[in-house]
Amino acid sequence: MTNKIKIAIVGLGQIGNYLYRELNSKKNYIELKTGKKIEIVAVSAKNKNKKRKFKIKKNIFFSNPLNIFKEKKIDIVFECIGLSNGVSKKVVETALKNRINVITPNKALIAKHGDYLAKLAEKNNVNLEFEASVAGGIPILRSIKEGLLTNKITKVYGILNGTTNYILSEMENTNETFEKVLKKAQSLGYAEPGNPKLDLNGFDAFAKIRILSALAYNNQISKSRCIMEGIENIHLKDIKIANQLNLRIKLLGISEIINNQLFETVHPCMVSKNSYIGNVNGVMNAVIIQGKPVGESILQGEGAGPGPTSSSLLSDLLSIMRGNLNKPFGVSFLKRKSIKPYNSDYYSNSLYLRFEVKDRSGVLSLITNRLANYKISIKRIIQTPDKKNKRATIVIITHKTTEINARNCLSIFRKNKNILKFPTLIRLYN
Amino acid sequence: MTNKIKIAIVGLGQIGNYLYRELNSKKNYIELKTGKKIEIVAVSAKNKNKKRKFKIKKNIFFSNPLNIFKEKKIDIVFECIGLSNGVSKKVVETALKNRINVITPNKALIAKHGDYLAKLAEKNNVNLEFEASVAGGIPILRSIKEGLLTNKITKVYGILNGTTNYILSEMENTNETFEKVLKKAQSLGYAEPGNPKLDLNGFDAFAKIRILSALAYNNQISKSRCIMEGIENIHLKDIKIANQLNLRIKLLGISEIINNQLFETVHPCMVSKNSYIGNVNGVMNAVIIQGKPVGESILQGEGAGPGPTSSSLLSDLLSIMRGNLNKPFGVSFLKRKSIKPYNSDYYSNSLYLRFEVKDRSGVLSLITNRLANYKISIKRIIQTPDKKNKRATIVIITHKTTEINARNCLSIFRKNKNILKFPTLIRLYN
Repeated sequence: MTNKIKIAIVGLGQIGNYLYRELNSKKNYIELKTGKKIEIVAVSAKNKNKKRKFKIKKNIFFSNPLNIFKEKKIDIVFECIGLSNGVSKKVVETALKNRINVITPNKALIAKHGDYLAKLAEKNNVNLEFEASVAGGIPILRSIKEGLLTNKITKVYGILNGTTNYILSEMENTNETFEKVLKKAQSLGYAEPGNPKLDLNGFDAFAKIRILSALAYNNQISKSRCIMEGIENIHLKDIKIANQLNLRIKLLGISEIINNQLFETVHPCMVSKNSYIGNVNGVMNAVIIQGKPVGESILQGEGAGPGPTSSSLLSDLLSIMRGNLNKPFGVSFLKRKSIKPYNSDYYSNSLYLRFEVKDRSGVLSLITNRLANYKISIKRIIQTPDKKNKRATIVIITHKTTEINARNCLSIFRKNKNILKFPTLIRLYN
Repeated sequence: MTNKIKIAIVGLGQIGNYLYRELNSKKNYIELKTGKKIEIVAVSAKNKNKKRKFKIKKNIFFSNPLNIFKEKKIDIVFECIGLSNGVSKKVVETALKNRINVITPNKALIAKHGDYLAKLAEKNNVNLEFEASVAGGIPILRSIKEGLLTNKITKVYGILNGTTNYILSEMENTNETFEKVLKKAQSLGYAEPGNPKLDLNGFDAFAKIRILSALAYNNQISKSRCIMEGIENIHLKDIKIANQLNLRIKLLGISEIINNQLFETVHPCMVSKNSYIGNVNGVMNAVIIQGKPVGESILQGEGAGPGPTSSSLLSDLLSIMRGNLNKPFGVSFLKRKSIKPYNSDYYSNSLYLRFEVKDRSGVLSLITNRLANYKISIKRIIQTPDKKNKRATIVIITHKTTEINARNCLSIFRKNKNILKFPTLIRLYN
């Protein structure tokens, strides 16, 4: 690498856009920190004529990003398109094969093809950096790969999706429905205006959890099926009841080594309002790491938005510019192992169960008998009648039980004329 | 550096001891992560025959650490003695001059001689790493130097001393006096058995704040006088009253850029029990960083003890072994500037004032009149009589006022026969 670093940005959405301006405004600062100059020699986006906050010179604009590699000499490419396949994959692949360093915030791509791409980077002796793919501005990957790297990590969990955390906080604060708050999140730029599904259904957090596990345990990115639930079925009612119980609903991503097996999951949790994680609100993200000998470490920061993302993208840039050659996942692909998945049937929690029932005698005993048959013992029960509609809401907090037991127990409620809809289940998490 | 890294450990107290065993037990893991082997070729301590959990071979033991440099070829030395001068400084100096990398958890040394030693390291093209000097196992220095390095940081603050945080938490939890809890902290190894003064009087946290500022703002380590108060004057009574006010006492270190000037301080603060910082208890440390564009980042973890310290020492070791040559303070000593100090007379806070007075008429109005004369307005007042002893406790929470104003206002209470002791002042911090 010479003293003039040539950079390409592929994708000029919210993030690429912000990054372009940051790089230009921080040129001097970057030179101060690295002793090297940077120059943006190529950008690529679908539409050249879209209205932007800056002008793009004709000679650096490419409609087809793959042409950049044919026509320009570059040192580092930022992939900011964000697809898990297609042109995103093609751009990263082509760059690495041409011995060009890659920086990307694309968690979907890394969670899906990270192992393959890391191998490619190592073989070509270049860097593939993706700090911004997990928890926005929090330097979490670097902390695991460097700051905490000699620790034996046994658990990583936290709030990994700012959009859903914002929605849950806002529903609690404003008493507005999921649908209304989602629209607000979209208008504020927190949720994708077109398709917020990947945030809401837990997929985004799940991709991040898989990246975190790979780094924490030196394992290959797992492909096994797991519990992945989003917040689409959380009603304002659940948030209000949680509130009465001094609990709060959070979408947690959890990665844990149980009996030498890997357990990964994403699902809504009821946590104590007095807990640390119960007080990480709004677009904040937080990651908690349990390791030896360090104990418990917490990193918290803004998890979404172009500012925090750009902070991480630039930290990757400067790391490469300073000549820190890193294996993308900390250790060589040759030495990363595959960890057997833990059977999530045996995952065990206290449960919050909300039943919407016809207000008839015998319904409560139907429910409690069924629970008793499956040895699910009840910690607390709250029945709220809705006289006008001849209905009632029954909320039950159970003692700990396994997934498989709960699933089998609840199955009959799918078709019972007195149970108006299949019960809402939210796991309690301490 | 060859493929066999030769290591010396100077100082075999609690930390050096733990480090020695960690290095031996993690040899294979370190080789996996770096591709290089390590060997401890020299250790030094005052007393060779002290009972230790491991045997030291005769040929690697040195009573005088400076002889190591004459007799052995080493790549990296760990300085674990912990003095701010004397042999600690001599060892680090000699190592750097001999082009040997240095790793140390010694905040007193770095806060005092960090600029000089960094210059020496840069001139000799070796690393001087001190991640473990601030906030134990939290990778805070690396996060500022690398993960957040392109951010414009304007404030860094937090709980930086595990010993005092443990004492304050324990006093609140057990209702025991400062003296009793201090003894407990000493027996648990949290506070120095001989001389805990540097923890208790705020010096330790202050050294850490100066290191943090130097990294956050690229300035030379400041030498200016500042408010430095410890917890020696915090009484159980203050903790109980804080509790009634839904507040909690924490020893905070604060570094901030105010009007382009540097303000650094350490003092006890009353913070809301509902705040994040108010819930960092026990030996936990937490550092909060405000920067642009990243927003607010929080790092929390165990701040004391050999385990967390060793985690940071090893992260420094692996960084050096991977060939990451870093300027000790992120940028070259040639480019670090000196920032003008902010005049702490104008530092402004709401105040908690506790007066112990004779229970006589006129005393309260004496106090309130004096405050009024200095335009310090009162937010809240609580008077508790102690009839038996004909005394009373008057607690006043004021609105915001400056240091200089408060100092001038309170001065007369030093010699007033109705005021039994000079009032306790604790700043409120939001």
